Amino acid sequence: MASKAFAVVAGVGPGTGASVARRFAQAYPVALLARSPENFSELVKEINQSGGKAIGISTDVSSEESVKNAFKKIKEEFGDANCAAAVFNASGRFARKPFLEMTVKDFSNSWEVSVQGALIFSQAALPGLLKHAEDKSAKYPPTLIFTGATASVKANAQMSGFAAPKFALRAMSTSLAKEFAPKGVHVAHAVIDGVIDIPRTKDWLKDMPPEAKIGADDIAQSYWALHEQSNRCFTNEIDIRPMLEKW
Amino acid sequence: MASKAFAVVAGVGPGTGASVARRFAQAYPVALLARSPENFSELVKEINQSGGKAIGISTDVSSEESVKNAFKKIKEEFGDANCAAAVFNASGRFARKPFLEMTVKDFSNSWEVSVQGALIFSQAALPGLLKHAEDKSAKYPPTLIFTGATASVKANAQMSGFAAPKFALRAMSTSLAKEFAPKGVHVAHAVIDGVIDIPRTKDWLKDMPPEAKIGADDIAQSYWALHEQSNRCFTNEIDIRPMLEKW
Amino acid sequence: MASKAFAVVAGVGPGTGASVARRFAQAYPVALLARSPENFSELVKEINQSGGKAIGISTDVSSEESVKNAFKKIKEEFGDANCAAAVFNASGRFARKPFLEMTVKDFSNSWEVSVQGALIFSQAALPGLLKHAEDKSAKYPPTLIFTGATASVKANAQMSGFAAPKFALRAMSTSLAKEFAPKGVHVAHAVIDGVIDIPRTKDWLKDMPPEAKIGADDIAQSYWALHEQSNRCFTNEIDIRPMLEKW
Amino acid sequence: MASKAFAVVAGVGPGTGASVARRFAQAYPVALLARSPENFSELVKEINQSGGKAIGISTDVSSEESVKNAFKKIKEEFGDANCAAAVFNASGRFARKPFLEMTVKDFSNSWEVSVQGALIFSQAALPGLLKHAEDKSAKYPPTLIFTGATASVKANAQMSGFAAPKFALRAMSTSLAKEFAPKGVHVAHAVIDGVIDIPRTKDWLKDMPPEAKIGADDIAQSYWALHEQSNRCFTNEIDIRPMLEKW
Repeated sequence: MASKAFAVVAGVGPGTGASVARRFAQAYPVALLARSPENFSELVKEINQSGGKAIGISTDVSSEESVKNAFKKIKEEFGDANCAAAVFNASGRFARKPFLEMTVKDFSNSWEVSVQGALIFSQAALPGLLKHAEDKSAKYPPTLIFTGATASVKANAQMSGFAAPKFALRAMSTSLAKEFAPKGVHVAHAVIDGVIDIPRTKDWLKDMPPEAKIGADDIAQSYWALHEQSNRCFTNEIDIRPMLEKW
Repeated sequence: MASKAFAVVAGVGPGTGASVARRFAQAYPVALLARSPENFSELVKEINQSGGKAIGISTDVSSEESVKNAFKKIKEEFGDANCAAAVFNASGRFARKPFLEMTVKDFSNSWEVSVQGALIFSQAALPGLLKHAEDKSAKYPPTLIFTGATASVKANAQMSGFAAPKFALRAMSTSLAKEFAPKGVHVAHAVIDGVIDIPRTKDWLKDMPPEAKIGADDIAQSYWALHEQSNRCFTNEIDIRPMLEKW
Repeated sequence: MASKAFAVVAGVGPGTGASVARRFAQAYPVALLARSPENFSELVKEINQSGGKAIGISTDVSSEESVKNAFKKIKEEFGDANCAAAVFNASGRFARKPFLEMTVKDFSNSWEVSVQGALIFSQAALPGLLKHAEDKSAKYPPTLIFTGATASVKANAQMSGFAAPKFALRAMSTSLAKEFAPKGVHVAHAVIDGVIDIPRTKDWLKDMPPEAKIGADDIAQSYWALHEQSNRCFTNEIDIRPMLEKW
Repeated sequence: MASKAFAVVAGVGPGTGASVARRFAQAYPVALLARSPENFSELVKEINQSGGKAIGISTDVSSEESVKNAFKKIKEEFGDANCAAAVFNASGRFARKPFLEMTVKDFSNSWEVSVQGALIFSQAALPGLLKHAEDKSAKYPPTLIFTGATASVKANAQMSGFAAPKFALRAMSTSLAKEFAPKGVHVAHAVIDGVIDIPRTKDWLKDMPPEAKIGADDIAQSYWALHEQSNRCFTNEIDIRPMLEKW
């Protein structure tokens, strides 16, 4: 790859985020953002040892200051590089509960990570993405990807605290696609509509074959395929389901 | 009407909120909530003088305490009445601006009114709505209505600060409909997809006939028609456009 | 009502169609179209005996000639009246079956009634609807309503023969709304998302209270409420569910 | 590729169909179906001369007999091979025109190719696709792709004759995805939302840079990326736009 460019992933845990980091690390140095270092330290080591380049940065995506510091650190490490890809994979935790038992805090916690976090992260990544769009040596258009969920398009009972921010994130993704596509940035939203096969879901759907869950590496490959799309073919939304999804 | 019940409208200004208040005041005593008394004081007087009953309460819907106080005041005024209808018509102000110029504060202001406000208001109104659902003498099922906009379903460029909360509000409405319909509460969301004819928009579409704008009283009548629906026929979403809407 | 105008309902059976006919007969002479006279003859008698005016016409909505004859008959009976409301409630029969067992004929039967029928019926009704839009003495804007179903927005497994035409009908409704709203015709689509309480579904959801089914008269009332909307407030789509719908 | 499998493309013209054929011919022998041989004869020659294998078959996709003959011919040429991929790219011609000027024939022509054709083609291809799903040596899950358009999700004025079948096709695609995913067939629908750069559109958007149009080869690459997805990651719908799309 001729151009000097990095990829950044926010919300790196043991699932999709890690897989996306590994996949994009095959092409770019990667910066991994997560609240707790235990979410990225092993992975950073793994990538660096297998010939890639990775840094991990403790970041609270809901905090402007924290994200600014992260991007400052990225600049220190990777120099004045373009941003080839930015993946927002963070999501506020939210437990299903009766509406009348939800607190304003439940709600705002979820919002602050999923939506405010996406705003702050996107604003930090966009200057580097726009620079990459101008770079004639760039192999692929710069790509900004948001990870959504079933709740991005379906608002079930007792799930408003999760669905409201996820619907909002989807709106933000579409709005950004419309504003930044003409400037060469490819913005996409992925509706992950099923159970991802990660350590936390190990015991879910136990009696079912592996095809009942979504593979995290497979999601990562699909994100990479989005990144490979040319500027004459931008996909702004994909859905993802396992073969045995009940829908 | 046999049952003792009131209606409450949050977000009363010179447009939709006022019209809704007038329409529901034909059947119920109404409580009008708005941040500034100038938004409801004339209207309260008008309703009370024309044979209805209205109270106005200065309320910041984004504040739990303020909304709790408002409902305490309602109880003092209307006694232990059911809530027959609650209309959430508040909306955070938001100006179209380039994404990179938006501040976290722009965003959270909009969110706090449109979504957090809807959460707080709904939680305050639901006990009274549920009581009305149990009341055999109630003429119509209790109704909780949220006012949406074009931006509830369409996220245009530079509009994410408005569209994100509006998408979120729509998710909340659907989730509430699914949770509370079985308990007898009719929840509905209205996508107002056009320019409403209010003092603020007086000079918009000036060269067009009146049918280019949505009538605020007509919206109110449509909300009333939602309220009249039986529990064997709940509509959870309507869209509203003027005859000459360009879409 | 000052203006001389009739309403026409296609697809009159013992359910929604009959209820819609009764409701609109309170305001207009009504023409009832159904393939078999047994679907309307009792109802015609009932309406005429209770002070309304109704005619029934054996019609195959999928046939241009048959629909033309029906509208000729309407003209003979009602004179040169405007069409105040036209409701397309016909639907091709379709049984859920594995895709590989469906025949082209299964599919085209369903299409011919649900979509081709809607085309033919709308083309026949529109001249009268447009005339009503020009009539200054008309109380309400002329209204063209299409009855949809869950399958209008959700395409389940083995249901493509029903969902494909229903999706298509919804597209037609939207397209007509955009073309004819500026000419004063209010076009609306109703997604009936639940079991309607009609003789044929008597044994369905037997262990559930009446609120588990949609009331046909309640649908009719909602259609009437659509008709009452002014030309500064057109709703182009409503969904309808019973209180105890599982979604 | 260990398994013996072919790909089949219906609706091969000088645009998307040809590009898809070329792309899939890099991995599979391909059968190209089009009404007129002039649509595929040069392309068949080109593929065969460049090391691939292709056959062209004159086919009317709206005719069961014609499609059956085509698949019989495929079997004669490719033997008892699996079907690795089937792409339905045919579309009934339709001109924008006022609703009242459309004929039933305009409508049914469009339906017969876009929807009835999709039914017939899918039924012919599915046995081979299902066989591929059972084949342990298959590299990728068998894939059935439908080409949609803006009109698959947006029904503009005067466009119902095109939008109705396209909405219907989308319903069919979703229904098939739900029925056949559990059997291992990956079904996907592509909303091509912009002008494709093909000979016929040469003079469109002339003053705009190439990024104002969608590249046919780029669409083909995106279809290939769908085909590469594992059965733990099926995308059922993508949208595609050029960088400079106005939306």
